[in-house]
Amino acid sequence: MKVEIWSDVICPWCGIGQARLDAALAAFGHAGEVEVVHRSFQLDPSFPQGKVVPVKEMLRAKYGMGTDQLQATLARVEATAATDGLVPYRVGENDVGNTQLVHVFLAFAAEKGLEHTAWKRAYTAYFGEGRSIFDADSLVALGADLGLAEDDVRAALTSPALHAKVAADGREARALGCTGVPFVVIDRKFGVSGAQPVATFRGALEKAWSERPAPLVVEGNDDASCGPDGCKVP
Amino acid sequence: MKVEIWSDVICPWCGIGQARLDAALAAFGHAGEVEVVHRSFQLDPSFPQGKVVPVKEMLRAKYGMGTDQLQATLARVEATAATDGLVPYRVGENDVGNTQLVHVFLAFAAEKGLEHTAWKRAYTAYFGEGRSIFDADSLVALGADLGLAEDDVRAALTSPALHAKVAADGREARALGCTGVPFVVIDRKFGVSGAQPVATFRGALEKAWSERPAPLVVEGNDDASCGPDGCKVP
Repeated sequence: MKVEIWSDVICPWCGIGQARLDAALAAFGHAGEVEVVHRSFQLDPSFPQGKVVPVKEMLRAKYGMGTDQLQATLARVEATAATDGLVPYRVGENDVGNTQLVHVFLAFAAEKGLEHTAWKRAYTAYFGEGRSIFDADSLVALGADLGLAEDDVRAALTSPALHAKVAADGREARALGCTGVPFVVIDRKFGVSGAQPVATFRGALEKAWSERPAPLVVEGNDDASCGPDGCKVP
Repeated sequence: MKVEIWSDVICPWCGIGQARLDAALAAFGHAGEVEVVHRSFQLDPSFPQGKVVPVKEMLRAKYGMGTDQLQATLARVEATAATDGLVPYRVGENDVGNTQLVHVFLAFAAEKGLEHTAWKRAYTAYFGEGRSIFDADSLVALGADLGLAEDDVRAALTSPALHAKVAADGREARALGCTGVPFVVIDRKFGVSGAQPVATFRGALEKAWSERPAPLVVEGNDDASCGPDGCKVP
């Protein structure tokens, strides 16, 4: 069974949703037969590259909230994170920036077999440690946490193929009707939008498992094909 | 609807199967709603890189056929190709080599929006024109046919991400039970193995269309998600 999760690394609900999905998977009887694939979704692809602003400044500009109201809202999100075991989970003290590079970094880590580890590490670096994830130097440091060599990380950040992969993930999300993240899709059949409770993720896993796709029905008798042992010629 | 076709460029049945699938799609009433994705399958990934041998020499060594028998077999495949409009279609005069690089080239062309065009061009270059497709210079020439810049092609041929993509295609084929190519999969539900008649491909398209997946069922009310306009906070 294939579970895909679209997220952005600076999205507070995504780190929380990831923890809840992980909890649901840990309690799911068929977790060993589940492949989890992380997919990139940029909340704001038009945010200028290289620019970073304090998240509170961005929120004030976006919502026109006063300081007290903003503080109360952020505290509610942090309290929610705490109930999911995410402590500390700073959603008000960080900077925000364009996340394209960190998605490219994560696509590279995925190629190295570190997909899930790298996403979790990125959330912890950003929300737990308040580190930047918006420039090459920060991502080299993040790579070092994962045992990735500096030269490899720097080369990956300019890889057209990895940039294309990130863009393709975004297009695919839109094609599936996803407008917000986290967005979890199971076997391209069931979706869960938002950081829903663990029980909701668990229920979706159970439902998808009970309705999982039948094996491929294949027509054709291989009389006109080539394989490792050569070509058939009728 | 998604149609995936796994092939190797030096596989005579793959060029023929592609022509038949194309014919089936041209006659299919919902072709405008079909996405065709080409996937890589290497018949012999262990063939030494850089080495090329005449196909007849390889076939004699593999099957121990005498010259007359070999000639008759090759003529049958070429006659079949001719009934599908593939003339000339040389299956006995070419060289064979490791196809990893040409698959990487095709993955690069796909990123440039030239996926189907590039595959068709590669078959024509190899079976129609007897050109090599096994080294960087040959692939630069093939790229030039498609309007791709030499520097871009050469850079692509060493891209770890594109090499990883080709390897992933092969792994996915094996996971689906594919042992020979061409291998066509529709919506991961129906498969057609081998260069079956156009009517067989057409029938599979019709059947898959009538049983195409329902739209994604999404749970969750978006009260704990972030989108382009910001994050919801309950």
